[in-house]
Amino acid sequence: MIARAAVELNKAYLLLNHGPVTLVSSAANGRRNVMAASWAMPLDFDPPKVAVVIDRSTLTRELVEASGEFVLNIPSRRIAQTVLAAGSSSGREGDKLAALGVATEPAAQVGAPLVDGCLAWLECRVIPEPDNQRKYDLFIAEVVAAWADPAVFANGRWRFADEAQRTIHYRAGGHFFATGEGFQA
Amino acid sequence: MIARAAVELNKAYLLLNHGPVTLVSSAANGRRNVMAASWAMPLDFDPPKVAVVIDRSTLTRELVEASGEFVLNIPSRRIAQTVLAAGSSSGREGDKLAALGVATEPAAQVGAPLVDGCLAWLECRVIPEPDNQRKYDLFIAEVVAAWADPAVFANGRWRFADEAQRTIHYRAGGHFFATGEGFQA
Repeated sequence: MIARAAVELNKAYLLLNHGPVTLVSSAANGRRNVMAASWAMPLDFDPPKVAVVIDRSTLTRELVEASGEFVLNIPSRRIAQTVLAAGSSSGREGDKLAALGVATEPAAQVGAPLVDGCLAWLECRVIPEPDNQRKYDLFIAEVVAAWADPAVFANGRWRFADEAQRTIHYRAGGHFFATGEGFQA
Repeated sequence: MIARAAVELNKAYLLLNHGPVTLVSSAANGRRNVMAASWAMPLDFDPPKVAVVIDRSTLTRELVEASGEFVLNIPSRRIAQTVLAAGSSSGREGDKLAALGVATEPAAQVGAPLVDGCLAWLECRVIPEPDNQRKYDLFIAEVVAAWADPAVFANGRWRFADEAQRTIHYRAGGHFFATGEGFQA
């Protein structure tokens, strides 16, 4: 059971604004998948849009192009190993979610699943831009629903208390940064 | 005097991969400017490309469209107030860099300046994509030179020691996160 509360769409960009790593989940034609993506960012406030890079070699690319939908899941430090594994194997070899032992729940607006162990979820519908997809592997999408664990995100603010329940940022080679101290300039 | 060493182009994405806030500096026709941008990400490894959102209302937009160039500067926590101020005022009211008391140095490959107080710099040349620019305020660019302060980035790795010399991530309303603890999954 995923603990989550709806996030108002005009606040959805706040889930992604600080640049955490994401898991992209997808589903189409009876198949589903998950991959890690660091190259994701907000693109607009309201209606919220996002941009994400999805390499042409991936099964995720095939499923996102077939369904026109995906979910950006924001993982916690607790599942950093799963993020790394999701970024290191291909869903073409079998159901990656099952292989990783990752539980999911149905999303509200899209067919792609919500990934358990994450802190926030952005349900996204692709705005077709074939040139961007072909030339840059770049997908633009509208956020049609958003959720967050109310223990760590409420009233438009992240409030991290538990070290394991923080967002994370990917470097390379299995190395991450945890999201650090909050401060006001 | 900015402390910096060249970063190999195939490692330039590592400067931006963890999602820090950036300062976009620009220059054209005898004018120059700087603005804050959280919505920036790597788009390719080698040759390195980046994507960044530059709102159509900004002076930066005018200068980037006129010159086809900009620098993504990665600020340190030490200058978080400058980042906030750069994101809260317009260069149309006068030379913002001068008003903020921010020193600069010439870049190697582009006319936009390198901003002092930052930890890394990506010199970028715009790949014209008029539809993206018009519809999404989205700019795609190739990184043509990259630099980092060797005290915090060397051999393709960030190594933060001093709390004030860490990268930062923007939330909203003047609130940031510092880049936190590094760990291996």
